[in-house]
Amino acid sequence: MDNKDKIGMFDSGVGGLTVMRQVQKLLPNESIIYFGDTARVPYGEKSRDTIISYSKEIAFFLLEQGIKVLVIACNTAASACSGNRLQQIFNIPVISVIDPAVQRAVEVTKSGRIAVLATRGTVKSGAYQQEITKRLPQATVFPIACPLLVPLVEERMVDHPATRLIVKEYLKPLRDYNVDTLLLGCTHYPLLSEMIQAEIDDQITIVDSATTCAIEVQKQLLIHQLNTEKTKPDYHFYVSDDPENFRLNGQFFLGHPIHKVHSSIEQLISR
Amino acid sequence: MDNKDKIGMFDSGVGGLTVMRQVQKLLPNESIIYFGDTARVPYGEKSRDTIISYSKEIAFFLLEQGIKVLVIACNTAASACSGNRLQQIFNIPVISVIDPAVQRAVEVTKSGRIAVLATRGTVKSGAYQQEITKRLPQATVFPIACPLLVPLVEERMVDHPATRLIVKEYLKPLRDYNVDTLLLGCTHYPLLSEMIQAEIDDQITIVDSATTCAIEVQKQLLIHQLNTEKTKPDYHFYVSDDPENFRLNGQFFLGHPIHKVHSSIEQLISR
Repeated sequence: MDNKDKIGMFDSGVGGLTVMRQVQKLLPNESIIYFGDTARVPYGEKSRDTIISYSKEIAFFLLEQGIKVLVIACNTAASACSGNRLQQIFNIPVISVIDPAVQRAVEVTKSGRIAVLATRGTVKSGAYQQEITKRLPQATVFPIACPLLVPLVEERMVDHPATRLIVKEYLKPLRDYNVDTLLLGCTHYPLLSEMIQAEIDDQITIVDSATTCAIEVQKQLLIHQLNTEKTKPDYHFYVSDDPENFRLNGQFFLGHPIHKVHSSIEQLISR
Repeated sequence: MDNKDKIGMFDSGVGGLTVMRQVQKLLPNESIIYFGDTARVPYGEKSRDTIISYSKEIAFFLLEQGIKVLVIACNTAASACSGNRLQQIFNIPVISVIDPAVQRAVEVTKSGRIAVLATRGTVKSGAYQQEITKRLPQATVFPIACPLLVPLVEERMVDHPATRLIVKEYLKPLRDYNVDTLLLGCTHYPLLSEMIQAEIDDQITIVDSATTCAIEVQKQLLIHQLNTEKTKPDYHFYVSDDPENFRLNGQFFLGHPIHKVHSSIEQLISR
């Protein structure tokens, strides 16, 4: 087993790479190991128990690679594993992509009126709505399901007029909702944040769950004195399906080239 | 067991209902039983062997309900079960959504230059390309993957300006390809046929696989003297996942209300 010196993170696919991108920006000395469960993507339609069992499997795999902190960079997995479900099992800090975004949203809102853009599955799960009102009971949450944004981002159409038309339409109800905070509750959406920003009132603050998650990782490393300051960082990528496919698609989400992706099929199947 | 008096058809989801719609139009006296494998949708990323085994399971289920002809109304299943794989097992006519469309395309083309619009999975499988060149070896096939059309149709945005922009973009290469025939190789695309027609040269003939499949069903019933002329038709719907979800979404594809959907989970699991 390696030394416990890496940040471990996982998602059902490539989306979590937007979280990794922010972690790399904020913590350029840290080594990262990323797991994409591409054989079992999408998690959205699967049962809670199935997703928890997948998440545990992946967490064990990452722990064996020597991680010092675990980031659940997948909204569906983070929602299924809410309430410290993984933190209770593992002796390293576990950070969910949902919690820091929710915390930030309730800090920045003045009116308590918060919109959440997410996939239909995340909206239906009620994860953001529940977490927000748990922290700020007087909050009014307006979830907006944006089912086409994931396929559009995956087609790299983040600067396309068709995407702009669709974004405009999804954001239309904001006028009536009169929110002061807009939470991007899907790992794909940071790639559309400029377009979204251009379509909304300047007075509305955007909370991007990838950025807030990276800040929380930085904070947890500080609290637990786990920072790496001197090494040259390593980045490793593991997937449960075709590595090349992930490599080609992942680069767009990560924002820089991915050179090698390992297949972890045997390791996971052998459990 | 019922009398063998129904047309049986299946798809991985709701898409095949566009085929059913054409069959209903052409054969208004025929009873139909439709199976949507909604628990295991999408088939696109699954292995050939898995899809063949699902298709056999569903075919057995439909045969037990008393069908006289079986329609594979799913491009992925039809491609996996190509070469009469199911016809060799069952003693009723088996009709694939692919074959009649290919046959029609090679009949109408004069130049032998045929474009095929399909999902990325169908394009990658090479099913249409192979079947066309098998029948017309001098044909030049231009497959165009249109990954966003399925999600756009599922969001019912068949008349939306964003969809038009995306359709325009997918069809842009047609100018260079100089085809005289355009085959719609996905069950969702008939719902976009008007929009597609408006974007292409009038000289190009559209072959819609739902319509050609319905014509083939009519032909097979005639050949095997299986027509029903006098009864009031029954329509039955079975799914492997949530019936209500299918009922609500399916109506858009079928073009008229669906009143009742049965869940077939127990029947399939008991095998």
